[in-house]
Amino acid sequence: MKALVILSGGLDSTTILYDLVNRGYETEAISFIYKQKNIKELECAKKTCENLNVPHKVVDLTCYNDLAPSSLTRENISVPEMHYNEPEQASTVVPNRNMIFIALATSYAISKRIPELFYGPHLEDHKTYLDSSPIFVEKVAEVLKVCDNFQVALKTPLLWKTKTDILSIGISLGVDYRYTWSCYYSRGRPCGKCGSCINRLEAFKEAGIEDPLEYEV
Amino acid sequence: MKALVILSGGLDSTTILYDLVNRGYETEAISFIYKQKNIKELECAKKTCENLNVPHKVVDLTCYNDLAPSSLTRENISVPEMHYNEPEQASTVVPNRNMIFIALATSYAISKRIPELFYGPHLEDHKTYLDSSPIFVEKVAEVLKVCDNFQVALKTPLLWKTKTDILSIGISLGVDYRYTWSCYYSRGRPCGKCGSCINRLEAFKEAGIEDPLEYEV
Repeated sequence: MKALVILSGGLDSTTILYDLVNRGYETEAISFIYKQKNIKELECAKKTCENLNVPHKVVDLTCYNDLAPSSLTRENISVPEMHYNEPEQASTVVPNRNMIFIALATSYAISKRIPELFYGPHLEDHKTYLDSSPIFVEKVAEVLKVCDNFQVALKTPLLWKTKTDILSIGISLGVDYRYTWSCYYSRGRPCGKCGSCINRLEAFKEAGIEDPLEYEV
Repeated sequence: MKALVILSGGLDSTTILYDLVNRGYETEAISFIYKQKNIKELECAKKTCENLNVPHKVVDLTCYNDLAPSSLTRENISVPEMHYNEPEQASTVVPNRNMIFIALATSYAISKRIPELFYGPHLEDHKTYLDSSPIFVEKVAEVLKVCDNFQVALKTPLLWKTKTDILSIGISLGVDYRYTWSCYYSRGRPCGKCGSCINRLEAFKEAGIEDPLEYEV
């Protein structure tokens, strides 16, 4: 069976990729560049695909940066340095990002006759990122059934998992966490203060294992 | 009221733009470049926006060309020169194009707080272009209600209209058909032989008016 994964290079999509390879899927990955502040995630995505010998399509979606102001796409909007659940995280929303990624990935999947498309929203995303919510996933999956004669099934295996759950799955699959990037910045080391770093650090702490990345703080 | 129109530069979306301007909407247009063979439509879109004094966002979506093989995106696949209803027109489908355009336009509409998004599928599209079918429109509209806190309503006023109906509407609105392009090629004059030219020519004939464009044949 063939599968396509939307791979950011963060914990969640990387875990999905390891799982699919482990289950014997003929897997490809697709990533998007939109001059995001956390572009360093892409280096990790590339490295993971090399390590797992997975073909990796990188799509230059620079045009999207211009359409969608967000603290992840604009230098003049600061990334909020607080917990992932705080309302201030709304500034990190890049409007309608997942619909765009899914739409483009589906076009590629149709062209290459790949029947399953995976992406990695998780439980702690639902509140801030509406395009990672269960109702969004349900509605988009329905579009993919009618947009072309070739049907692509949308799969979101982590939708009801916490970051800690995902970490446990990843550990059992042997995910190499050195090549995952969660920080909303792209400095030498992850900041440890943005919502995404805090979410990651909490998960490692709760799982009782050590994050191999060294943080600024 | 603000509105955003996905404008190809063909008859249908141009007619929608005229209608919105006529009805006093504060209207913007958005167009996409993906190295399509019929890129000449974009010159028409630009000219129409200038004439109507409508802000026009042109998005460089070159990356999409690479993802989606079609007779409209590949030199080595010939555009079929036959009626719009023939099964061979399937080669002109650019997979999932409308979901991609709608997703990107919605991101822009959310960012600019534009509550209505218009695009122009028509009755004769339904059979070949599934991403212009009524069920597709219905399902995508549901996604737009849940992808963000700001809701964008999807509007398709021509969904049940024939090309001849659209021409009648356009005539009453004073559409300048010199600045519309339907041909699947981008030569000096429209070919008159591709499905899109045939659909247009039939409509002008049926409406009993003359197409201001001169054709190759």
